[in-house]
Amino acid sequence: MFSYEYLLDLALILLCTKLLGMFTRKLRMPQVVGALLAGVVLGPSALNILHDVSFLKKTAELGVVVLMFNAGLNIDIDEMKNAGKASFIVAVIGVLVPLAGGFGIACLFNKGQYLDVTTSLFLQNMFIGVILTATSVSITVETLRELGKLSSPVGSAIIGAALIDDIIGIIALTVIASTADADVHLVLTLLKILLFFVFVAGAGFLFYKLFIYFNKRNNRDLRRYVVISFAFCLLMAFSAEHFFGVADITGAFFAGLIISHTERTKYLANRFSTLSYILLSPIFFASLGLSVDLGHGFTGSVLLFAGALLLTAVLTKVIGCGIGARLSGYSSRESLQIGVGMMSRGEVALIISQKGAALGLLSTAYFGPIILMVIATAILTPIVLKLVFHDPGHGSGHNLKFPLRRKKGLPARASDSDAPACDIQTQG
Amino acid sequence: MFSYEYLLDLALILLCTKLLGMFTRKLRMPQVVGALLAGVVLGPSALNILHDVSFLKKTAELGVVVLMFNAGLNIDIDEMKNAGKASFIVAVIGVLVPLAGGFGIACLFNKGQYLDVTTSLFLQNMFIGVILTATSVSITVETLRELGKLSSPVGSAIIGAALIDDIIGIIALTVIASTADADVHLVLTLLKILLFFVFVAGAGFLFYKLFIYFNKRNNRDLRRYVVISFAFCLLMAFSAEHFFGVADITGAFFAGLIISHTERTKYLANRFSTLSYILLSPIFFASLGLSVDLGHGFTGSVLLFAGALLLTAVLTKVIGCGIGARLSGYSSRESLQIGVGMMSRGEVALIISQKGAALGLLSTAYFGPIILMVIATAILTPIVLKLVFHDPGHGSGHNLKFPLRRKKGLPARASDSDAPACDIQTQG
Repeated sequence: MFSYEYLLDLALILLCTKLLGMFTRKLRMPQVVGALLAGVVLGPSALNILHDVSFLKKTAELGVVVLMFNAGLNIDIDEMKNAGKASFIVAVIGVLVPLAGGFGIACLFNKGQYLDVTTSLFLQNMFIGVILTATSVSITVETLRELGKLSSPVGSAIIGAALIDDIIGIIALTVIASTADADVHLVLTLLKILLFFVFVAGAGFLFYKLFIYFNKRNNRDLRRYVVISFAFCLLMAFSAEHFFGVADITGAFFAGLIISHTERTKYLANRFSTLSYILLSPIFFASLGLSVDLGHGFTGSVLLFAGALLLTAVLTKVIGCGIGARLSGYSSRESLQIGVGMMSRGEVALIISQKGAALGLLSTAYFGPIILMVIATAILTPIVLKLVFHDPGHGSGHNLKFPLRRKKGLPARASDSDAPACDIQTQG
Repeated sequence: MFSYEYLLDLALILLCTKLLGMFTRKLRMPQVVGALLAGVVLGPSALNILHDVSFLKKTAELGVVVLMFNAGLNIDIDEMKNAGKASFIVAVIGVLVPLAGGFGIACLFNKGQYLDVTTSLFLQNMFIGVILTATSVSITVETLRELGKLSSPVGSAIIGAALIDDIIGIIALTVIASTADADVHLVLTLLKILLFFVFVAGAGFLFYKLFIYFNKRNNRDLRRYVVISFAFCLLMAFSAEHFFGVADITGAFFAGLIISHTERTKYLANRFSTLSYILLSPIFFASLGLSVDLGHGFTGSVLLFAGALLLTAVLTKVIGCGIGARLSGYSSRESLQIGVGMMSRGEVALIISQKGAALGLLSTAYFGPIILMVIATAILTPIVLKLVFHDPGHGSGHNLKFPLRRKKGLPARASDSDAPACDIQTQG
């Protein structure tokens, strides 16, 4: 039978995510917060008016693949190379501490009561750690720009570290996701992951050569690059799951990373962000909110976990990245600023959560706490960041240095004027 | 359980439609022919390798809505007003004759043997007529441009008539689709259709005013126009079905037509064609090809029907439009040229077919003949068009007139250089 209710579902999701997104934007929060709230409002927590949830779930899955593809596409390898040792140290310690912290807090609360599958408790708890690894810097970038600190050493360290920690996060996810299948031996799993990276290198090399070859022959018809790139993304995502037992979003991410080397990156990133913001990413964010049932799922222990998770998320990033920054020679004050700048979580944490639920490693009972954590860190980051940048003496070295740099007519860094790459999916 | 096979399905569809589309393009046929062939190749007729057909069907449905929305968006009302009385007469007679012809041929072949539902045989056969009404001029425009005849009176008449006949076709579909529900009284149905147009006028007026209001307040953030417009399209499509029993694609088409009045049309049309060509329209065209099973569905009588349908499609358009042109004062030769220029069918015929199948008015057994008809007219049109434009005497009035016009430095019409609107979905 022909059904048309999904048209209404889509219309409601688009309207709600957009209107709430515009509202949260007005409050200087990222639009993803509004999109999550839209899902909560439309879902079982409040109105409960959506019909065709199975179609929405599938489209949301595709949305995640495209989001991660675009994240890979928007990574500037050269910029990452220039990020330097300091960013690398900040990123690595800033991933390890939240990973340990998330695992620890999960061990306290998760006794397997929400998930009756065969996956081990160790992996389930480790997964909570993985969710806490990836930073979302879009809010920090906005706030730093406002404070005029984006091109300061602190700003550069944050942006560099956030780029690197996305990649470490995706590798952590890859390892955990591969081990989810309890039957498989650990050595075999690691071998498969190794083979996957060999495959990525091989496929990347081949695709890159073919891309350059076609680029020379044809400069007129740009649409075919878009379609072929998308097909490549989907094939990589499929191959990752099918042949290597690696998460499909890992495959999509590396497909994006490979294409980010080519000449057409900007054109492609633009087209895929259009595909995302018109249809796929509103559905994805709303579908997360839909999974939350504030009325029933929020027992006392889940609420307690939500509070503990938020505290862990904030403290582990501030401490981890702060230690990394201090070790790299930043002052205590700057280290604190860097730590606070790295504390907000966003799309990637949500994407990893959705993946975990699909793999049976994460109970959807935890979606509520995780979404609350994402929303709360998004609200807290700009407030705390302004506090730690607040200068009572009105005249430290940096406060003088950067206005001077502007006065001398030196150009500000490109990133001052460009929109942050990771915000591209959810911007107005 | 989490499934990822749909990723492979999508990748195969995108690759096949693109590669076959590029191939048919090389043969100077529209890419939609390649996309249809891709579906046939991937489907039960040949490889039969797709997994998640239910997801594909739903996405294809959404693709049709977006295609019709974009068709409405690309209609230039001013250009239609300028098309004049001649185009109008060509369009009307060019719709009526194929409608009658399609109905006649269906009466001969369709005894209800392929469709065991309660819809009346009269409506089923009428529906075949409706499928034959809408012209696709993209191939004609390409050919006329090549012949240097696009801005000739013949070219203008064809483009104008094709615009108008899309709208008449959609109204015919609306009437037929509304009467599909056998329980409903005819007067009530016609009343509902009337109310639908009142609703369209009201919703259009409101949306237009709101759009202009927001446009004045905000010029920076263009993405919200795209998302809000899409939500409007989906709401109109849903309302058409839900409240008025009118086809959802009719609602989407009029939503596009309403928005085509606004300032942002070009920006919007561009974004929606991106959404179409990256994901939705390849899936739609491939899904049509998927419905065809050359191995089993093609019995002798279906094959015979395919031949008869093709002949009817060609002759009724050539005769109908030719009569219209002759009545409007064109010479016999020009009338023949106009008739031939109007004979190819394309996306709209396929969209209407898919709709008919969903409504239980068309058996999917006829998809094969219809797809063959679309492919065959696409191949025939440029060949026959060149024949009827071929001038043995090397010096008729028009042949002199238009090169002279160029020599004098007068600008060619805008449509000479622009890509045809209706081809936007399927171009490279």
